[in-house]
Amino acid sequence: MMARALSSSINGVSDLFGLSRANHLSPSSSSSLRYRPPSAIKMVQTQQTYWATIESDIETHLKKSIPIRHPVSVFDPMHYLTFAAPRTTAPALCIAACEVVGGDRAQAMAAAAAIHLVHAAAFTHKNIPLTDRPRPEPIEHKFNPNIELLTGDGIMPFGLELVAESMSLGLNNPDRVLRVITEISQAAGSRGVVEGQFKEMDISLSEIDVGLIEYVCKKKEGELHSCAAACGAILGGGNEEEIENLRRYGLYAGMVQGILNGVGSKNRKGLQEMVEKLKVLALKEVECFKGNGKFDGILAWFESELCNV
Amino acid sequence: MMARALSSSINGVSDLFGLSRANHLSPSSSSSLRYRPPSAIKMVQTQQTYWATIESDIETHLKKSIPIRHPVSVFDPMHYLTFAAPRTTAPALCIAACEVVGGDRAQAMAAAAAIHLVHAAAFTHKNIPLTDRPRPEPIEHKFNPNIELLTGDGIMPFGLELVAESMSLGLNNPDRVLRVITEISQAAGSRGVVEGQFKEMDISLSEIDVGLIEYVCKKKEGELHSCAAACGAILGGGNEEEIENLRRYGLYAGMVQGILNGVGSKNRKGLQEMVEKLKVLALKEVECFKGNGKFDGILAWFESELCNV
Repeated sequence: MMARALSSSINGVSDLFGLSRANHLSPSSSSSLRYRPPSAIKMVQTQQTYWATIESDIETHLKKSIPIRHPVSVFDPMHYLTFAAPRTTAPALCIAACEVVGGDRAQAMAAAAAIHLVHAAAFTHKNIPLTDRPRPEPIEHKFNPNIELLTGDGIMPFGLELVAESMSLGLNNPDRVLRVITEISQAAGSRGVVEGQFKEMDISLSEIDVGLIEYVCKKKEGELHSCAAACGAILGGGNEEEIENLRRYGLYAGMVQGILNGVGSKNRKGLQEMVEKLKVLALKEVECFKGNGKFDGILAWFESELCNV
Repeated sequence: MMARALSSSINGVSDLFGLSRANHLSPSSSSSLRYRPPSAIKMVQTQQTYWATIESDIETHLKKSIPIRHPVSVFDPMHYLTFAAPRTTAPALCIAACEVVGGDRAQAMAAAAAIHLVHAAAFTHKNIPLTDRPRPEPIEHKFNPNIELLTGDGIMPFGLELVAESMSLGLNNPDRVLRVITEISQAAGSRGVVEGQFKEMDISLSEIDVGLIEYVCKKKEGELHSCAAACGAILGGGNEEEIENLRRYGLYAGMVQGILNGVGSKNRKGLQEMVEKLKVLALKEVECFKGNGKFDGILAWFESELCNV
């Protein structure tokens, strides 16, 4: 159910270069499993359960972290806009990466929440009606633009505050937490998601520029997932090789998700080739975790989200 | 010269409840000293030199930290909007607080830069033309709204990234840096400057609500200066009492600056009373540093900026 909800997670290019992938999926989650033998179905179901519990834990953590409290005029829109943003799989990947290197879920929870908040802030600002927005999204606005602007501004530092404060729980050492704050700041900022949003403005509706789409997906979904996986590995105590493997896994798999969310079907030849290439690259990065009890977990998203379209 | 430039620093309420204080100052910096005996003039001049060197060092650090580099489409507006924002005295207060507790200027430089960036991001977003902005600022826009929005989004995490990265210079211990990141995130976010901006929307041009203005100035200029002073003291190795004294000094003095920037003259009786009360409270907080070689420094801003109107 959660995995299905994730299939419609779109944080950017959905409307820019084709139909949304969600439109091409049957509403029944079992449809995506129809070519699998029973044993494979069971494994995928277990993976999906694993993924669903992660998602549920992150949601619980976020609800606890952002209650509707005083001042209500600030926290009501903050709460609303945090949960109005479509899910991305990046926060759950952060947890899965932490666990695959032997860490505990709680160690990566604040970082996973912060990564969702980076995405929620970007999504909120992306949908503010501006005079020079070439393609305004057909989205329902519960709050006025000024409130959405300010709330987005408040969400982002709150995410980093959560990570910094997680130190006080005694779950992580300060060096790891500081490294994660740097990672998230970079991924969120002008060399990451924001750069992707800048470049996204150059994407033309009428003409597919494969190189530009690749770059935008790299900077947006790619960097967010890459950062998420690296942060999880850092907090879980992974060694440098594991951190870099997971960082690249996140990058390639995130890019696949970005492209699929935008492409929706296989009729864009150049993009489909890129997707296949990225899938191979992604799987290569996590081969080293084979035999690890959590290997299925790290693959769960890949299996259910990226390989059934 | 720098101190004079600071007198026109306005980060918010200038246009809301009266004339800017800058309009009431003579363009000659000596005019503000006209009632002082020669020895006092010399002391104030020394203080102003101290303050000016801090300002200059922060500017140099920011220019080095935000060069116009690749991708130019991102870093050109980021550089421009960082320096287009009017100065606030909060970053320099951060350095002065670090030095008054015995710290080295370099220890607080990244935090001072981050505090300027928080302000620059808030200023940039404050001036984006939105349909529901009741009082758009008469400001020249070099970039389109979308670029200003994205650039503001990029500036804020970049500031925190600078602080986190300052660890690698070996100037600070990670516990202090993490504490400062939490401080800056809180001051910038929904319980600080952003809350002030929310409340600012309720300020009426026609009717002065002293309580509301006090609250807005507390959350905006107050929290920013309070955070700046506390961060400087934390990074400089101040003890908890010194940190809290400087935090309150920053709060009261920042509120005074916020009110003065908005009031401009003494003709708002309720506000003038508040200013006098806040000045007394502020000075009380730094009495403990009397006899300290850097005491004049921490007072420099107070003397030159808040007491000569």
